[in-house]
Amino acid sequence: MEDPVFWYAVASVLLYVKMFATSMYQGFHRITKMTFKTPEDAALAGKAPAQEELPQVQKAGKAWSNDLENIPIFLALGVAYVLVGASSGLAGWLFMTFTVARYCHTIFYLAELQPWRTIAYGVGTLCMIAMCVLILFTLF
Amino acid sequence: MEDPVFWYAVASVLLYVKMFATSMYQGFHRITKMTFKTPEDAALAGKAPAQEELPQVQKAGKAWSNDLENIPIFLALGVAYVLVGASSGLAGWLFMTFTVARYCHTIFYLAELQPWRTIAYGVGTLCMIAMCVLILFTLF
Amino acid sequence: MEDPVFWYAVASVLLYVKMFATSMYQGFHRITKMTFKTPEDAALAGKAPAQEELPQVQKAGKAWSNDLENIPIFLALGVAYVLVGASSGLAGWLFMTFTVARYCHTIFYLAELQPWRTIAYGVGTLCMIAMCVLILFTLF
Repeated sequence: MEDPVFWYAVASVLLYVKMFATSMYQGFHRITKMTFKTPEDAALAGKAPAQEELPQVQKAGKAWSNDLENIPIFLALGVAYVLVGASSGLAGWLFMTFTVARYCHTIFYLAELQPWRTIAYGVGTLCMIAMCVLILFTLF
Repeated sequence: MEDPVFWYAVASVLLYVKMFATSMYQGFHRITKMTFKTPEDAALAGKAPAQEELPQVQKAGKAWSNDLENIPIFLALGVAYVLVGASSGLAGWLFMTFTVARYCHTIFYLAELQPWRTIAYGVGTLCMIAMCVLILFTLF
Repeated sequence: MEDPVFWYAVASVLLYVKMFATSMYQGFHRITKMTFKTPEDAALAGKAPAQEELPQVQKAGKAWSNDLENIPIFLALGVAYVLVGASSGLAGWLFMTFTVARYCHTIFYLAELQPWRTIAYGVGTLCMIAMCVLILFTLF
């Protein structure tokens, strides 16, 4: 628990579970409402392709986009953090706060809760800025 | 070959090659059909900008989106797998099965082959779930 | 400075800063022009939702897409490069050239400068191909 590798691994798993849940949410709405934009998917269900994705699928798609702009670079900074040997006391706090913030961000996106969504984004950003600072302090 | 790092490196290179091939596929269709949506790209070719991307470019774009939702987090889980020292006997099987599944996924997307595309996605997902389980077993 | 980990960490931080700057650019235009497509964001500003994202936001969105297709896989190849112990003399050159190329790519996208944007993309791609070759040479 004093080892940043431990927290990096826990964060990776939890963030994967969160992203997988977003995919499941999209799939659930597509299947229960039998609404598929991709023609071969609609054909498989014996339906005509939809003109547009469902509102729930679009909203989850926006949460996905924001995840893709934040989570992979967080994980890369996490690897840098581990490999350069930055503060092991802070690793757990930073990695877990980021993870919780991203769970909140997705929930707030789906629930259309503002300014909470922006606050969750901001908390994640502050964690990454802190990681950058700690990495640079360790290097220089 | 008993070292998960070996398989992580091979998977990274193969997945990069796959993604690069998807970009080349898009570029090939844009250039051979002289169809560019971005105005400055069209101007460079002495053309008016296209209203829409070509169908091939759109299809490859959907394959790209699905890749971005799966490949970076797989690679992050792969690093966690390596750093925590999870099962070295299974690393090669899991990392290579995921990689083959993603090659198949792109091919099936471009060829509009269902339910094969969903099966390929599912195989990749099962590999990541197995990686998560093995990481957590090693940690706890 | 002879250690690839050093350059990997510097590249991660610089690429994060670049991506964060792209988000700030989008936020700056949305806020100063009070133009929000997402309904709950528009409501927070006491506005009706916009039909379309601003041109600047759309352009930055395209730069983002290209970043997401290139930067996470570069960082994964960088980890593989470090972990397999590929050439430490070339690491700094490759990782920094890629980073500078991606800064240029975003600037050229926003400034609509062609063929410079494509050249910047190509330089980044060449760095990744060189990394793949060096990784495979070290493995086999």
